[in-house]
Amino acid sequence: MGTESGLSTVLNGLSGIREWQEDCYRRLHSSPELSHHEYATADEIVKRLEQTSFEVHAGVGGTGVVGVLRNGDGPAVLLRADMDALPVREATRLPYASAVTTTDDDGAEVPVMHACGHDVHVTCLLGAAQLLSDGAHEWSGTVVLVFQPAEETGDGARTMLDDRLAELVGDVDVAFAQHVLPMPAGYVGTKEGPVLSAADSMRITVYGRGGHGSMPQATIDPVVIAAMIVVRLQTVVSRETPPTEPAVLTVGRIASGSKSNIIPDQAVIELNVRTYSPAVRTAVLDAIRRIVVAECQGSGSPKDPDFELFDRFPPTVNDADVTARITEAFTAHFGDSAGPLPLQTASEDFSDIPTALAVPYSYWGIGGIDPDVYRAAEEAGRVSADIPVNHSATFAPVIQPTLDTGTRALVVATLTWLGRHDD
Amino acid sequence: MGTESGLSTVLNGLSGIREWQEDCYRRLHSSPELSHHEYATADEIVKRLEQTSFEVHAGVGGTGVVGVLRNGDGPAVLLRADMDALPVREATRLPYASAVTTTDDDGAEVPVMHACGHDVHVTCLLGAAQLLSDGAHEWSGTVVLVFQPAEETGDGARTMLDDRLAELVGDVDVAFAQHVLPMPAGYVGTKEGPVLSAADSMRITVYGRGGHGSMPQATIDPVVIAAMIVVRLQTVVSRETPPTEPAVLTVGRIASGSKSNIIPDQAVIELNVRTYSPAVRTAVLDAIRRIVVAECQGSGSPKDPDFELFDRFPPTVNDADVTARITEAFTAHFGDSAGPLPLQTASEDFSDIPTALAVPYSYWGIGGIDPDVYRAAEEAGRVSADIPVNHSATFAPVIQPTLDTGTRALVVATLTWLGRHDD
Amino acid sequence: MGTESGLSTVLNGLSGIREWQEDCYRRLHSSPELSHHEYATADEIVKRLEQTSFEVHAGVGGTGVVGVLRNGDGPAVLLRADMDALPVREATRLPYASAVTTTDDDGAEVPVMHACGHDVHVTCLLGAAQLLSDGAHEWSGTVVLVFQPAEETGDGARTMLDDRLAELVGDVDVAFAQHVLPMPAGYVGTKEGPVLSAADSMRITVYGRGGHGSMPQATIDPVVIAAMIVVRLQTVVSRETPPTEPAVLTVGRIASGSKSNIIPDQAVIELNVRTYSPAVRTAVLDAIRRIVVAECQGSGSPKDPDFELFDRFPPTVNDADVTARITEAFTAHFGDSAGPLPLQTASEDFSDIPTALAVPYSYWGIGGIDPDVYRAAEEAGRVSADIPVNHSATFAPVIQPTLDTGTRALVVATLTWLGRHDD
Amino acid sequence: MGTESGLSTVLNGLSGIREWQEDCYRRLHSSPELSHHEYATADEIVKRLEQTSFEVHAGVGGTGVVGVLRNGDGPAVLLRADMDALPVREATRLPYASAVTTTDDDGAEVPVMHACGHDVHVTCLLGAAQLLSDGAHEWSGTVVLVFQPAEETGDGARTMLDDRLAELVGDVDVAFAQHVLPMPAGYVGTKEGPVLSAADSMRITVYGRGGHGSMPQATIDPVVIAAMIVVRLQTVVSRETPPTEPAVLTVGRIASGSKSNIIPDQAVIELNVRTYSPAVRTAVLDAIRRIVVAECQGSGSPKDPDFELFDRFPPTVNDADVTARITEAFTAHFGDSAGPLPLQTASEDFSDIPTALAVPYSYWGIGGIDPDVYRAAEEAGRVSADIPVNHSATFAPVIQPTLDTGTRALVVATLTWLGRHDD
Repeated sequence: MGTESGLSTVLNGLSGIREWQEDCYRRLHSSPELSHHEYATADEIVKRLEQTSFEVHAGVGGTGVVGVLRNGDGPAVLLRADMDALPVREATRLPYASAVTTTDDDGAEVPVMHACGHDVHVTCLLGAAQLLSDGAHEWSGTVVLVFQPAEETGDGARTMLDDRLAELVGDVDVAFAQHVLPMPAGYVGTKEGPVLSAADSMRITVYGRGGHGSMPQATIDPVVIAAMIVVRLQTVVSRETPPTEPAVLTVGRIASGSKSNIIPDQAVIELNVRTYSPAVRTAVLDAIRRIVVAECQGSGSPKDPDFELFDRFPPTVNDADVTARITEAFTAHFGDSAGPLPLQTASEDFSDIPTALAVPYSYWGIGGIDPDVYRAAEEAGRVSADIPVNHSATFAPVIQPTLDTGTRALVVATLTWLGRHDD
Repeated sequence: MGTESGLSTVLNGLSGIREWQEDCYRRLHSSPELSHHEYATADEIVKRLEQTSFEVHAGVGGTGVVGVLRNGDGPAVLLRADMDALPVREATRLPYASAVTTTDDDGAEVPVMHACGHDVHVTCLLGAAQLLSDGAHEWSGTVVLVFQPAEETGDGARTMLDDRLAELVGDVDVAFAQHVLPMPAGYVGTKEGPVLSAADSMRITVYGRGGHGSMPQATIDPVVIAAMIVVRLQTVVSRETPPTEPAVLTVGRIASGSKSNIIPDQAVIELNVRTYSPAVRTAVLDAIRRIVVAECQGSGSPKDPDFELFDRFPPTVNDADVTARITEAFTAHFGDSAGPLPLQTASEDFSDIPTALAVPYSYWGIGGIDPDVYRAAEEAGRVSADIPVNHSATFAPVIQPTLDTGTRALVVATLTWLGRHDD
Repeated sequence: MGTESGLSTVLNGLSGIREWQEDCYRRLHSSPELSHHEYATADEIVKRLEQTSFEVHAGVGGTGVVGVLRNGDGPAVLLRADMDALPVREATRLPYASAVTTTDDDGAEVPVMHACGHDVHVTCLLGAAQLLSDGAHEWSGTVVLVFQPAEETGDGARTMLDDRLAELVGDVDVAFAQHVLPMPAGYVGTKEGPVLSAADSMRITVYGRGGHGSMPQATIDPVVIAAMIVVRLQTVVSRETPPTEPAVLTVGRIASGSKSNIIPDQAVIELNVRTYSPAVRTAVLDAIRRIVVAECQGSGSPKDPDFELFDRFPPTVNDADVTARITEAFTAHFGDSAGPLPLQTASEDFSDIPTALAVPYSYWGIGGIDPDVYRAAEEAGRVSADIPVNHSATFAPVIQPTLDTGTRALVVATLTWLGRHDD
Repeated sequence: MGTESGLSTVLNGLSGIREWQEDCYRRLHSSPELSHHEYATADEIVKRLEQTSFEVHAGVGGTGVVGVLRNGDGPAVLLRADMDALPVREATRLPYASAVTTTDDDGAEVPVMHACGHDVHVTCLLGAAQLLSDGAHEWSGTVVLVFQPAEETGDGARTMLDDRLAELVGDVDVAFAQHVLPMPAGYVGTKEGPVLSAADSMRITVYGRGGHGSMPQATIDPVVIAAMIVVRLQTVVSRETPPTEPAVLTVGRIASGSKSNIIPDQAVIELNVRTYSPAVRTAVLDAIRRIVVAECQGSGSPKDPDFELFDRFPPTVNDADVTARITEAFTAHFGDSAGPLPLQTASEDFSDIPTALAVPYSYWGIGGIDPDVYRAAEEAGRVSADIPVNHSATFAPVIQPTLDTGTRALVVATLTWLGRHDD
């Protein structure tokens, strides 16, 4: 572990960057950009990094930005922040709330909001970059910054990997990412092992034979096939996955037919699967296919069903040793404000990067809610009712101590690997 | 029964009206109008009736037309034809095919076609009116013509009844209607008892509690409720209705949710029920409600389901005595071309009129398919594959002997009641 | 048709045989024997036939008895009666009620009762044989009597056919059978076309993989497979068979597992199918197999399911011409006491005989309920509640006019084919 | 914590008791007794305890035995062993294998075997009692021994509590129990928090209305109700319990009907529920009742369903502080042979005792499999295939080091609370 004095020296710079960090955060928050369209965000990042010693690579995987600072011997630490915003109409009433809209492929107006806190992530990583650059004499090794587009669509990490990311970053020893969450601002939570679920969406089209509603015998009813499938799919979690391994299979959409008295000729089911291990993930996806095929055969379906996988996210499984080490460092640095992170049912594509690079990683959470507000909600037993969660139109992290905490956490984790060992 | 000589005399006029009838048919076919919008059709009817002795009442229930000819003592016979067309794009390639389109409430273009043959019904009834008017010396009693709008939406008969139809027609003894069907042209089919099913459509909305797809425990999943309902509804026909009484329950539409990973908060099911007796009809509709309510309770639904009945058609159950009498008359007149009409799974609102007037009725079918074409299809075992059925974009009755047969049938049935009894 | 005078002469003998017929009936009723064990019944039949001119063949297909009377030129008429009783404990309190019990293969005591009226059938046929033998001068042709064992198990007719029945009876022109039913005694009902359903029972064994109830992931749960099958099978009648063709699919037994916390390794389903046409019968049996196989595949069943068909009865579909002819004869003879027979949901193996012999047949019903009792129940709307049906422990036909009517009906039908045509 | 020297002194006695312990174990193993019938086992326990300083109370809750040794000031520690065997036919081929059979209530022969290892538990506790009694000068406080009958039926602990157990044991500070498991002999595993599931079995009877299989419309089909319930119950775990909280709902038995063509009038379902928290346990049991009631209503069931709970086991949730303390002590004593215990899906009624006494508790596992055999199976990836588990007919713990380890563990845990603090 780095000496406390080295860490302290680096973090001393925090007071000097706080003002531009807060400005940067407000600017990003009021100028959100949808996945794969993070152009202004990338510009902001590049401009800031140019004021550091980091070597900057823009346009990686579209709008991604990579920064590399090789600072002598030692391990290489990769720090990743995601950049994109969501199609949500902001309802926070903040002075720096987003009023941005864009147009979708059909020409319809779409509101845009940083409802997931990626503006926090970018700002903290820019701050950490500045501190690490300014305090480079206090550590040695390599720091790699990855500003990733399109986390929300689950394909930003892969897009960067497909566009020479591995080559740009070289050998890496460990990777980190963090997420602002509906916990009290100032809190940092860590967890070994599974922390975020894998997510897979599947669009299934099943085929029947249409006809008049009064003559079912001349048809193969896809409404019945689809209903049987929805019912049958419940057995995947109830009977097939191990009870001690969380798995969720939700049919979020079912659609067939347009009129009460016409039997349609197909039905569409869209479902979403959450799992925390590759074995369970594979087993669930296989079971879905097996059940859908069987139900189609049970009705004598005239055509094989179609399966289309989309919006796929890998599981996030924190390395035990790496996480134990940062947990110890966070506890030493943050005291009682460091603690456990509960298992999250959300999904992320961060782990695609360390998985592709074959390095261990840890992903932690930082709080973003005014601690007084949080405590009051907690005392009233109203956390789930009163505290806005990510993706909500009123999700609005308090600027401080959120930015400070996220910046510190990145620096602490980095120097746990790269700090000078004075003994 | 009327004397054959009287009937022959009346029908002798047929050759004199055939030309305008065929012209009239082509005009109607190429100018179809949707339900409740049969304005030009009504004008055509009124104009033609003004050339007869019938007293004419237009605008009954919107676009309905009533004709009454009181011709001495005797029973009163009601003859009904329906007037409306369908939102189908004609694909017959006939010289007089429809190219008509209209716009729906949302401004979208809607094609219109006489795909159900109501143009045949109107033309035949106009022809029969002319023959009965011209040959009034050969019969005595009263003939009532009812040109009814909006059969396809199931509410045209009721609309006329709600607008003084009973008052206009006075006491009636028997009511008749006919339908052109995919049988050989020239054929007339009759059937005692149930002949057309009742039809009822129901829109059911069930309520859950929405949420993120990864947290089903915080939601009540309406996709599962809807699927269970579709599955459970199969037991109505398989377990609850008598095996010897036909009943059909089709879920023609199911819709819930818009995205794979969001659990929606409601689901919509639209279903259609076909039955042939009031007891079974009531039992099925009651069973549906019972099952839907139970499945909602099974999921702990937060709100009672909504039920909306629409597109309701009464059953058509031909009076045994009346039908035996016209069957005998048709057999005498048409010979081998008269025969049985199979039970139809279609529905009609004609019977609303005799039911409201409390008179017995019979509804028969006439063929509309070129007899050679039909025979060839029959020999090839391809009737269901090759012969277009009502509502199809290629349903195109041959003009003759279809119009002649339908006109004759109406006159024969009428004079069976009103013909002079010479003995 | 035979002259009325010839028929009258033959039936004049009725008063002379009534006493022994009633004695015979009481004796049979109090000495019922289960399927394939009709030894005493066969003795009674043989002894009686030996007092007629019929040539007697005993032991055909085990306990079956065949009588043949070749009486000059003319057609050959086959009359069949079934002989076996049921494992029901009689609760009629009649003086001649059965107190018979037997022991089954496991040594358990089994009560036996003529709860289906086969004693009536045997007695009437013995009476008709005597009358036809005594009045042989009034007709010419051949009469064949078939006293058949084991109708209740559905295999008695085939057993006789497998044991030289066709050879014994020679060429036959028409076949008849009758059944006593819960209608007023004295009534004779006929019906063209389908009159009794085909019945097929199927035993299905599906295979899972057992294990501890707390570890479903290590098992394949056959309870779930079986439940899904029962649910899915409802769609056969609700979606696959034509609504106008009656079909019933009942799962009468489901059994899997022995303990709440052990997942068993197989499940058994026993079902019964009723249909009225070979096409629907085949379609339903095929659909069952298709659905069961698919549901097993849906669960990843480790072994193909087993299907065993048993208790199979053919459909009984009365020949239209033959039935029209006996209907006319019955109407002439019985007047208002002849009428229609409603479609029965029961099944019979009688038709196996005419089908094997390739001759047309008709099967009619005779009433067995005291007419006053029936009328009172009818007026109170309590027929289904108060009138015991076949197979019930209180099913007790009144001796007269039941025996007279059944005897007359057989003679009338026979002489319709064989009576002298004097004109 | 006790001084290591005190612990060592007490454990020094182990070599002196090993011989009678092994004899005792073989005797118990070859003389197993079913739940509530542990008479000879109790005698063996009493006889042994009479050779110690423990005050002995026999016949507590039938065959339970309590021993109390008050040895000066200090906390009171409760140690519990269960005594009963299982109706399993032993297949171990051990020289001391059980050949015992007994007869059940129906007179049938039932084999009996210590297939769950309770003979190990009793022997170890007797050994620990002897060591603690002999070494009483090395510790102070109170040790309470509870030899409990009828763990397998889940009611032995409650039976003792209902029969003055609390009064006999007086104030207690902490309670311990251990179980031999399919882990390498010599290993001791501990786990904080949930360690064994709660288990609840439920027998559900649902009511229909029986009738002939050909007339479903006159019946309410309980086979369909039961199948729908099994299908619907899958949604409890798939939709209602939190994905991160393990829950299992198994229908282990379904039974309805006896014949393919008779619709029965009721159906029985027996199910088993495993949960790890009172909230989930209550939620699952409530959901089952809600679903069953709803499905009965969905079919118009004529009678409310019956619910009967049986074989209920509480969850076992180890106290965090107590478990941390014994884990530390075990690690100090056993070194690498101490480690974590995985979450078990089995259930126990031990926790009923500390719950009733309102004291914290910990339940740990000891290995019983020959370490070489276990290691070989592990290397071959065949642990689940080759290593017999509890309740199997071949479950046979090796005598040593199993007995030594279990005895040591009890003494170590006890002296962690009661050992002299010399410093």
